[in-house]
Amino acid sequence: MNKKIKAVVITPDNYKNKSNFPVLYILHGHSRNYATWITYAPSLKDMSDQYGIIMVCPDGNYSSWYLDSPLLPQWKYETYIANELVGWIDNSYKTIKDKGGRGITGLSMGGHGALYLAIRYQDVFGAVGSMSGGVDFRPFPEKWGIAEKLGAYNTHKENWDNHVVINMVSQIKPGLKLIIDCGIDDFFYPVNEALHSVLLANKIPHDYISRPGKHDWEYWGNAIYYQVLFMSRYFKMSEG
Amino acid sequence: MNKKIKAVVITPDNYKNKSNFPVLYILHGHSRNYATWITYAPSLKDMSDQYGIIMVCPDGNYSSWYLDSPLLPQWKYETYIANELVGWIDNSYKTIKDKGGRGITGLSMGGHGALYLAIRYQDVFGAVGSMSGGVDFRPFPEKWGIAEKLGAYNTHKENWDNHVVINMVSQIKPGLKLIIDCGIDDFFYPVNEALHSVLLANKIPHDYISRPGKHDWEYWGNAIYYQVLFMSRYFKMSEG
Amino acid sequence: MNKKIKAVVITPDNYKNKSNFPVLYILHGHSRNYATWITYAPSLKDMSDQYGIIMVCPDGNYSSWYLDSPLLPQWKYETYIANELVGWIDNSYKTIKDKGGRGITGLSMGGHGALYLAIRYQDVFGAVGSMSGGVDFRPFPEKWGIAEKLGAYNTHKENWDNHVVINMVSQIKPGLKLIIDCGIDDFFYPVNEALHSVLLANKIPHDYISRPGKHDWEYWGNAIYYQVLFMSRYFKMSEG
Amino acid sequence: MNKKIKAVVITPDNYKNKSNFPVLYILHGHSRNYATWITYAPSLKDMSDQYGIIMVCPDGNYSSWYLDSPLLPQWKYETYIANELVGWIDNSYKTIKDKGGRGITGLSMGGHGALYLAIRYQDVFGAVGSMSGGVDFRPFPEKWGIAEKLGAYNTHKENWDNHVVINMVSQIKPGLKLIIDCGIDDFFYPVNEALHSVLLANKIPHDYISRPGKHDWEYWGNAIYYQVLFMSRYFKMSEG
Repeated sequence: MNKKIKAVVITPDNYKNKSNFPVLYILHGHSRNYATWITYAPSLKDMSDQYGIIMVCPDGNYSSWYLDSPLLPQWKYETYIANELVGWIDNSYKTIKDKGGRGITGLSMGGHGALYLAIRYQDVFGAVGSMSGGVDFRPFPEKWGIAEKLGAYNTHKENWDNHVVINMVSQIKPGLKLIIDCGIDDFFYPVNEALHSVLLANKIPHDYISRPGKHDWEYWGNAIYYQVLFMSRYFKMSEG
Repeated sequence: MNKKIKAVVITPDNYKNKSNFPVLYILHGHSRNYATWITYAPSLKDMSDQYGIIMVCPDGNYSSWYLDSPLLPQWKYETYIANELVGWIDNSYKTIKDKGGRGITGLSMGGHGALYLAIRYQDVFGAVGSMSGGVDFRPFPEKWGIAEKLGAYNTHKENWDNHVVINMVSQIKPGLKLIIDCGIDDFFYPVNEALHSVLLANKIPHDYISRPGKHDWEYWGNAIYYQVLFMSRYFKMSEG
Repeated sequence: MNKKIKAVVITPDNYKNKSNFPVLYILHGHSRNYATWITYAPSLKDMSDQYGIIMVCPDGNYSSWYLDSPLLPQWKYETYIANELVGWIDNSYKTIKDKGGRGITGLSMGGHGALYLAIRYQDVFGAVGSMSGGVDFRPFPEKWGIAEKLGAYNTHKENWDNHVVINMVSQIKPGLKLIIDCGIDDFFYPVNEALHSVLLANKIPHDYISRPGKHDWEYWGNAIYYQVLFMSRYFKMSEG
Repeated sequence: MNKKIKAVVITPDNYKNKSNFPVLYILHGHSRNYATWITYAPSLKDMSDQYGIIMVCPDGNYSSWYLDSPLLPQWKYETYIANELVGWIDNSYKTIKDKGGRGITGLSMGGHGALYLAIRYQDVFGAVGSMSGGVDFRPFPEKWGIAEKLGAYNTHKENWDNHVVINMVSQIKPGLKLIIDCGIDDFFYPVNEALHSVLLANKIPHDYISRPGKHDWEYWGNAIYYQVLFMSRYFKMSEG
């Protein structure tokens, strides 16, 4: 995209002593920005040190949904994250430059975004997580600026059908590692339960966690620990 | 379609005494034909009498999946059932000639077919049922002649994604009445559970029944009673 | 019980012409009485005629929960329904006098009651149904006069544990036929989902139906049709 | 119990430098012993170091099910673990001597055991986990030596009903932290799904994880990481 977009990059404390680090991309939710994760979950720094993972918190705009809009040609957040940002990070940091060293996760809009991007770029990301993800946003046609990117739901259902993660399971290839969680009092709980059912029926391996909790930072401040643990185990196994 | 296709038509015993009857279309499963339903479930005749419903058992070929094939131009079972057959029945019998007097149900391939047709022709059918339906057949890419109609799964995923009922929920408009059932030991149970979850998450009203049983006539011979009851209640309410 | 208790008895229109009829006991909910069912669901009369079933609507008091209270010696609704009333009906009407000709169902408090009685008297009742049943009432410790019969929840948990249907599945013997339903917007939906899960895990065959709807007569006025159909099929199979 | 019972105790590498450590009790499965966990999951040592947790792997005999048998007076594994062993550990090691510093988890028989003990000794254990737990063993009446401890299922159902965790949810008080997981191809998956449903219906907060996997060490070698993370977070919050 032809504009400057900020990102937070966290390097582990032993960054100088080793040559190649795995990278975890962590996407924020609607109406937030690149600084939100490190502000609300400063424990990311400790996890980065503990597991030796570079963490990248991109900016997904107020409501990008991390996709390339079929209506707005200049709206290319999918391309930005999966191509431009990953390329820039790989050039600028001592990263493992293959999918065995790249994971992506996020919360809410960013949970959907992480799954959407990982499924469409399975050569780029080897593991993907979603916290409280909006994995099917068709039940919420008026919310969160989605209609701006995809068209009004009533008139552009095909766009919506083609962009919700729950309709993309046939594209998941063996090898992609998935961890999906949601709080039972979250308004996205039913769509996560549905995604879990569809994945089960289609025999797509995935970790699925339901927990007490709502759509808030009390939930995500806890959930992120399990997401990072999952990613650290994936990175370790990929190293062999 | 440019060929003769047979169908069984059951008229209620009071057919001569009344002027307009609702019609229930009942679709058979893979490798069966128009005569299968009346052979295995002769109780249909009693139900027709009891509820005053005309029943039509079309022929869906050995493995039509009741769709118009995007690969084989002459394969037009969707058009045949929803247009040609319905038109012919309405011309030939004393039917209620609107969706308030038309329901469609079926088993297995026919359960998927009924949902597929009802969702695509909501002006034709007002109520739809599925027994042990193959409502997501992507987990079975090699089976039942589907690849012949849609292309091999690996190379034609988009065709498959566009034809499985589980991906069509956004097309369901308020008003369509749905009843979906499956036996817990059926190989289609997980996909029916998944469809149920997706319908719940998308707030689409539907009756959902799980029962003891497998993919066999012991199951369907029982299930059809509940399907016909559901339809009879729909027809009665439509009459007002 | 040493008091007069009223009941509604519905006989089918062919009562005079046949010798033995199956009987369906239908229990009302909290704060209602013997007359509630026939008032709100007058279609029971048609169903009685159609299927040839005697229907008995007992009085379960304002809040009997259809049990013998371990605290109040004179509170013996379990004994009343399963022994005294059944005996009186069998003496007074042309009934089939074994469990193959007896079913019991009910709504809410009566759904729990039907399951509770059928499980404890499997020699009396051969088939049982529950509509919107309070199949686990421990999440509602202050409600519906339960504490009066079982003791306060905090101090008498054992009584509660021993009287909720969800804890009684080990007592269900092969042969008892079960049909359980609930509306997805009912406050009893989670406990019915839980009972369904526990029955599945314990491999106890049962029909389970979830439908649109709440805890109201719009729901029950429809649900009763399916309950009676289920019972009629059980009675027919028992006759052989 | 009047016999010597072995246990493995793992102390973190900074044991000398600090005064009080939380303790995690980890129970083995049927036919295994105190040495099984450290043999198959040597990563426990790293986790002990990383989180500063003492880990205790007791011996639960070939098939104790971690309970006091109502039939065999000398069979007192419940008393042994919850009283004797905890007392001995607290006397012998620098432990935090209250429930805020004690967790218990286990696999299979030990998953049931952990839940059973934690629910019955909520003053002793503040957090509990279960991996692939046999949380309702009534569907398996002939297996794993249970009948030896509780009596044959057919003749001693009450003993079984009173000892399965799924029937003990009413005893769970606010404050106990629970994490329950199971592999979707495990024979204990349906009973874990059922426990999850019962806990949800009874509004008892709990983490619930379903994952790919069977009843084997590939599953547990991974699951234990998430269990220990959960416990470490509980211990940290208890410290305040």
